[in-house]
Amino acid sequence: MGSHEAPTEQNPVSELLYLEDVFVGQRFVTGSYRLTADAIKEFARQYDPQPFHTDEVAAKDTFFGGLAASGWHTAAISMRLQVENGPMISGGMIGAGGELSWPLPARPGDDLRVESEVLEVKPSRSRPERGFVTLKSETKNQKDEVVQLFIVKLLIWRRPEYGF
Amino acid sequence: MGSHEAPTEQNPVSELLYLEDVFVGQRFVTGSYRLTADAIKEFARQYDPQPFHTDEVAAKDTFFGGLAASGWHTAAISMRLQVENGPMISGGMIGAGGELSWPLPARPGDDLRVESEVLEVKPSRSRPERGFVTLKSETKNQKDEVVQLFIVKLLIWRRPEYGF
Repeated sequence: MGSHEAPTEQNPVSELLYLEDVFVGQRFVTGSYRLTADAIKEFARQYDPQPFHTDEVAAKDTFFGGLAASGWHTAAISMRLQVENGPMISGGMIGAGGELSWPLPARPGDDLRVESEVLEVKPSRSRPERGFVTLKSETKNQKDEVVQLFIVKLLIWRRPEYGF
Repeated sequence: MGSHEAPTEQNPVSELLYLEDVFVGQRFVTGSYRLTADAIKEFARQYDPQPFHTDEVAAKDTFFGGLAASGWHTAAISMRLQVENGPMISGGMIGAGGELSWPLPARPGDDLRVESEVLEVKPSRSRPERGFVTLKSETKNQKDEVVQLFIVKLLIWRRPEYGF
């Protein structure tokens, strides 16, 4: 069974990951997404209608000095990339929360990808069929600059044949 | 000038807030937003395409036991509510990041609002014209349950007539 063979560091398995398959230092990388000015403005009009996210001209006189993606847009794109092409966690990618930061804004024309690394794997005390994985997820642009860092605690299930 | 009069605890001013106008314990509350199943599925198809966010039937057999909003959708709605009807911070609502969690999922039919409280106000050491406000923002449903907690560090500017 593939998932019981020695995994490599990068994208180790293409099948579902259970608690037993995940280890500290394990890394994942997604494909990339090209961000456009239109996408930035469309997201912002709906969810974060501030001039630096909706209007190239008005954005010039703001903190960002030009059109910048809403941090929530960067977060949403990062989620999409991970759901489509990140770790395939059993039961889905369900985050309880974590530390989120945006060291730089994402900009029109950026190619974004998510690189993640397992920081901790912990069985649940109260629910033996479950556990938690702490994942450090960095969203990077084409210059390898980090535009989002999310250290997230994800739910994960134990492999069912272990009796749960 | 309104903003120099004693502010009340709730939505103290309807004009721009500078660093000097913000104080620990200050509270803000937004209007509310009715979340629909269609909106949950539309956001999820674009940004978080997992069965518990996109399909009522498939969602029943998942951790959530029914359709649930993506946490990023809850975050995006919370941002919209605050941009439209939260604290009007000078220069815009620009978050550097913070601690984010989703204690419960938002569900179809929920009426969401954001209640926030200032936890800290701190001038910048390196940039005298700026400062930071730490805001505890809780997104609550109609039963006053917290569906999102975000303790965020926001940029804020000093009042320009102070010489900057």
